[in-house]
Amino acid sequence: MITVSIIGSGKVAHHLILHLLEQEGIHLKQVFARRTAKLPAYLPQDRIVSRYEDLVPADLMLLAVSDDAIEQVSAAIPLSDQLIAHTSGGSSIEAIKGPHRAGVFYMLQTFSLEKHLDFSKIPFCLEATQASDFELLEKVALKFSEKVFNINSEQRKSIHVAAVFVSNFVNHMYVLGSQICKDNQVPFDILKPLISETADKIQTLSPLKAQTGPAVRKDKKTIEKHLEFLVDPQLRNIYQMITQSIQKK
Amino acid sequence: MITVSIIGSGKVAHHLILHLLEQEGIHLKQVFARRTAKLPAYLPQDRIVSRYEDLVPADLMLLAVSDDAIEQVSAAIPLSDQLIAHTSGGSSIEAIKGPHRAGVFYMLQTFSLEKHLDFSKIPFCLEATQASDFELLEKVALKFSEKVFNINSEQRKSIHVAAVFVSNFVNHMYVLGSQICKDNQVPFDILKPLISETADKIQTLSPLKAQTGPAVRKDKKTIEKHLEFLVDPQLRNIYQMITQSIQKK
Repeated sequence: MITVSIIGSGKVAHHLILHLLEQEGIHLKQVFARRTAKLPAYLPQDRIVSRYEDLVPADLMLLAVSDDAIEQVSAAIPLSDQLIAHTSGGSSIEAIKGPHRAGVFYMLQTFSLEKHLDFSKIPFCLEATQASDFELLEKVALKFSEKVFNINSEQRKSIHVAAVFVSNFVNHMYVLGSQICKDNQVPFDILKPLISETADKIQTLSPLKAQTGPAVRKDKKTIEKHLEFLVDPQLRNIYQMITQSIQKK
Repeated sequence: MITVSIIGSGKVAHHLILHLLEQEGIHLKQVFARRTAKLPAYLPQDRIVSRYEDLVPADLMLLAVSDDAIEQVSAAIPLSDQLIAHTSGGSSIEAIKGPHRAGVFYMLQTFSLEKHLDFSKIPFCLEATQASDFELLEKVALKFSEKVFNINSEQRKSIHVAAVFVSNFVNHMYVLGSQICKDNQVPFDILKPLISETADKIQTLSPLKAQTGPAVRKDKKTIEKHLEFLVDPQLRNIYQMITQSIQKK
């Protein structure tokens, strides 16, 4: 039986608690939250603590707090030789302070309040300074997903940046596309099958092979037509810059 | 029975021929191709023509040729009062020249040679100058898909530009993400579930609501970390420009 405690009461903590409570071989020992009202109602009251001094050792403490709070919260945990893993993509393993064994338990995903979370499709990026700690993180991660990776802090930083491109920036392209549709009385729905197909394609083709459109086939006439059509200077700039970038590959 | 002829022997013509041959209520009358060797082998030989003067009237001629060739090819068809529809997103209905009735039969998609084409998910954007011609185009389009739209040339132009953003530019973000992964010895596969989820989200959420990441939450620390990480000036420029654009919405 692996004992796990959760520090935090936000969205990530919430999902971790719900999932861990149901796992065989895992005992959810304690949940630390300053605002206990936000925790799931069916969590046994005797496992909830809101003072650091009430925390007891567990095989693993998962720190589901904001990036800025990792150093301060880990340093405040009055235990020693405790394995503490944060859940942040953007923070180094060295953000864990105090006389602890440090780890990272990062789930690579885009959280949406409105959508159900299917952990089984989420890659888990794990890091630990000791091999035995890594093994324990791996055992816990495998309760969520088969996609478990050993990723060090440098690699994780690059994943975090790459994720901004393939998720946040991609979504912004959807925003710009929907704005163009709205400005021209066209339903955005018309683009949704194309959006799905574009994402589907790179599941099997390399993105470079999947590239289509006027930029990659150097269709100057169409590019000129499009730039003429775009009156918003920001849209024109983005169109030109990405077109150039496509043509450089 | 609706008679349809296809002009062209490229990828679009190929898919149209395969689909129309199987439809009840449609008779594929003729296929015009200069290079007949590229046509599907099981197409009856007596329906293939390679000289304009052998073309006979049909209820509809679908022009599946490159944008540049639409004017010249339509003008060369020695028939009159023939309904001819081109299949281009980037061309006006006025590109159809000669004494014909003009139409547009545009399938909004990203064609991949390597992937099977499921027409039923593709939106069909139709245009005609006469109501009865539109009805005929609609009947034929419904043999492919339920997603049939009446879209004029101005609207189609905006769809074509929006499609560049939500498909070509999105794919380029995948290219940049995969480059970052490669440069840092991280498997690109790790990002694929995130890519799927990002595309899935906007099927039900508006893109503006679905936006996440450091730019939209104005997380300056993370943005600075990312810019420090990106050494390639092109990547830095794109990162900065899209971050700014996100923050303006």
